[in-house]
Amino acid sequence: MTLPSLRLKANAERRLRAGHLWVYSNEVDVQATPLNAFAAGDQAILEMANGKPLGVVALSPNNLICARLVSRDTKHVLDKSLLVHRLNVALSLRDRLFDKPFYRLVYGDSDLLPGLVVDRFSDVLVVQLASAAMEKHRDDVLAALLQVLKPSAVLWKNDSSARDAEGLERYVENAYGEVPEWVALEENGVKFEAPVLAGQKTGWFYDHRMNRARLAPYVKGRRVLDLFSYIGGWGIQAAAFGASDVMCVDASGFALDGVERNATLNGLAEKVACVEGDVFDALRELKAADERFDVVIADPPAFIKRKKDLKNGEAAYRRLNEQAMRLLNKDGILVSASCSMHLPEDDLQNILLGSARHLDRNLQLLERGGQGPDHPVHPAIAETRYIKSLTVRLLPNG
Amino acid sequence: MTLPSLRLKANAERRLRAGHLWVYSNEVDVQATPLNAFAAGDQAILEMANGKPLGVVALSPNNLICARLVSRDTKHVLDKSLLVHRLNVALSLRDRLFDKPFYRLVYGDSDLLPGLVVDRFSDVLVVQLASAAMEKHRDDVLAALLQVLKPSAVLWKNDSSARDAEGLERYVENAYGEVPEWVALEENGVKFEAPVLAGQKTGWFYDHRMNRARLAPYVKGRRVLDLFSYIGGWGIQAAAFGASDVMCVDASGFALDGVERNATLNGLAEKVACVEGDVFDALRELKAADERFDVVIADPPAFIKRKKDLKNGEAAYRRLNEQAMRLLNKDGILVSASCSMHLPEDDLQNILLGSARHLDRNLQLLERGGQGPDHPVHPAIAETRYIKSLTVRLLPNG
Repeated sequence: MTLPSLRLKANAERRLRAGHLWVYSNEVDVQATPLNAFAAGDQAILEMANGKPLGVVALSPNNLICARLVSRDTKHVLDKSLLVHRLNVALSLRDRLFDKPFYRLVYGDSDLLPGLVVDRFSDVLVVQLASAAMEKHRDDVLAALLQVLKPSAVLWKNDSSARDAEGLERYVENAYGEVPEWVALEENGVKFEAPVLAGQKTGWFYDHRMNRARLAPYVKGRRVLDLFSYIGGWGIQAAAFGASDVMCVDASGFALDGVERNATLNGLAEKVACVEGDVFDALRELKAADERFDVVIADPPAFIKRKKDLKNGEAAYRRLNEQAMRLLNKDGILVSASCSMHLPEDDLQNILLGSARHLDRNLQLLERGGQGPDHPVHPAIAETRYIKSLTVRLLPNG
Repeated sequence: MTLPSLRLKANAERRLRAGHLWVYSNEVDVQATPLNAFAAGDQAILEMANGKPLGVVALSPNNLICARLVSRDTKHVLDKSLLVHRLNVALSLRDRLFDKPFYRLVYGDSDLLPGLVVDRFSDVLVVQLASAAMEKHRDDVLAALLQVLKPSAVLWKNDSSARDAEGLERYVENAYGEVPEWVALEENGVKFEAPVLAGQKTGWFYDHRMNRARLAPYVKGRRVLDLFSYIGGWGIQAAAFGASDVMCVDASGFALDGVERNATLNGLAEKVACVEGDVFDALRELKAADERFDVVIADPPAFIKRKKDLKNGEAAYRRLNEQAMRLLNKDGILVSASCSMHLPEDDLQNILLGSARHLDRNLQLLERGGQGPDHPVHPAIAETRYIKSLTVRLLPNG
């Protein structure tokens, strides 16, 4: 297979040689190699300005990120064989890390499979294709997954906004076998069922696994509030780890049905209450009713989706965390999470400090957690790191 | 008790009001309140330029950090009663976090006790006094510890370099009872004995507890190299978690005696080998002998003690980590730690990425750990955060 060339401008190779995988459209020498000569999903040999090859890229010619490195070896193109190899490398890490087959099996760039995400629920796989090249190689992706994992069912959960920039339509459809509406999983020894078809993203957020595990010493015998609970990832685990009672708040009745389902599944229904409504409204009402909690968990959806949302988003994080702090008992714990890639961890820390000072409280930062190792960070690609979880203790001043 | 005033210059209160606890000598209005009117360890009411009180400070008039906030309430001075209160607040956190009484009980500023560190080994306490005020209140510190913890023995381990800036002599002496040379502790279910009198710092490094706990899934059945092993905190735990064999390298024969002692204590002597010598020499010799490991742990002493050591220190971290990577088997894990407060986590990450690229390998960042929650970070005082531990997976390029 002879590939065409994609030529970089002078010095545009630096970031790639330092480990990065993306080519931006303004880095391409379009005189030498016009982008509009390529179709979405085509592959090419990426060359430095002097003609030296850097590897194989897959193109999305109409996107700002117009190409992604598939391999640094010009002999390895994106095909079933490369997919099988990369899947095996990804699987061997997860096999080493986890006793049970519930995890993110493939995390895009970090597993050298740009545009591909696979969440594994034992023998059910939920797949997100987010690049033109992966969409084009859909059949290879499926064949490779069947070969390496022998699943009973595979779902294309291709409804993310990332597809818009790639000019791809959004859809959700069965790729193989019969995907049930609710799929079983286990996290930190607690059982769950996740709505992989109708739920958010792939149906479950494996990324906070380790942060949820760290709840155990803080919640034992305590009253816990779980804000933006979704189907109870944090709240049900808090109950399972010995919380005296847990209140889950979410705007979605469907999500709260999931909380009840998962509470029952673990014999914890009596400990877990649900409040349906806007979280900010609920915080005001709980304050007005003089409710107090020993531990509050605030894991909202991304308030900062794009860089230009930064100001407003920070204000929202500030409002949420300060209102959450107001509901804490005297020696209270706040677990404050953010999945906004654009919010640096230090900014979240400063927001918490500012809120505590505003309430004239003293703050200790106890834990600083990130995404689990099944979501490895690519050290050259800042975008692959997004989860922050800060556990702080709020004390009276004195 | 009427306290004299210490007056700040205009706007110098901002950092303190934002949560910080330290006053620098150039922030004091020395016309109004000359620093040389104070003796080391004296207390004063800290005032804004307009005379408004901010709280009580304890002074070190000859140090660059000339005063530290004791309390934001002008009624609370540093005395036995305040110490008892703060110890109880610190203890209640550790009681909640840990099943067994082995932890850092007091971590200076973060526990609102600037200049005081207490490591607890069940009923033996090892104490570091690092400010003139704490030294002056030594008897109160001891009385408060006896009241709150009823220990069998207390040691003053006052031999840190931080004392020099305070004009304090260095000494190690029994404060109460009889402190044995080796003191028992348990960490992550593994038994140790630490040389609290003759060892480094307080004899044990509780700060890496959680990072050591995370070794478990990586070391099972694997060959492990522990560089700068000291008495085996990482290496023995790796062996206890199922490593096939462990090699500990340290320049100190005394430390390696500790490794052997602790290996025997856990019935792991057959799995653990010791190499005495300079770590960089040992790395070269292991490479020359074609030795390979599945997991390498590099937790060196601080290479960057002062800001001006940054360049040389970074070069040392680079050399260490690159040489460590050269000893890894194909799908190898490097645990790279730093206790240099001046080395930001992102810099360490970049050092690892640069080394991997230099060796033409691909890097996945799997875990990002900090100090455990018995070393809380004071969110306004960057100096209270110092431990970094990055776990990376090194793969062939392709």
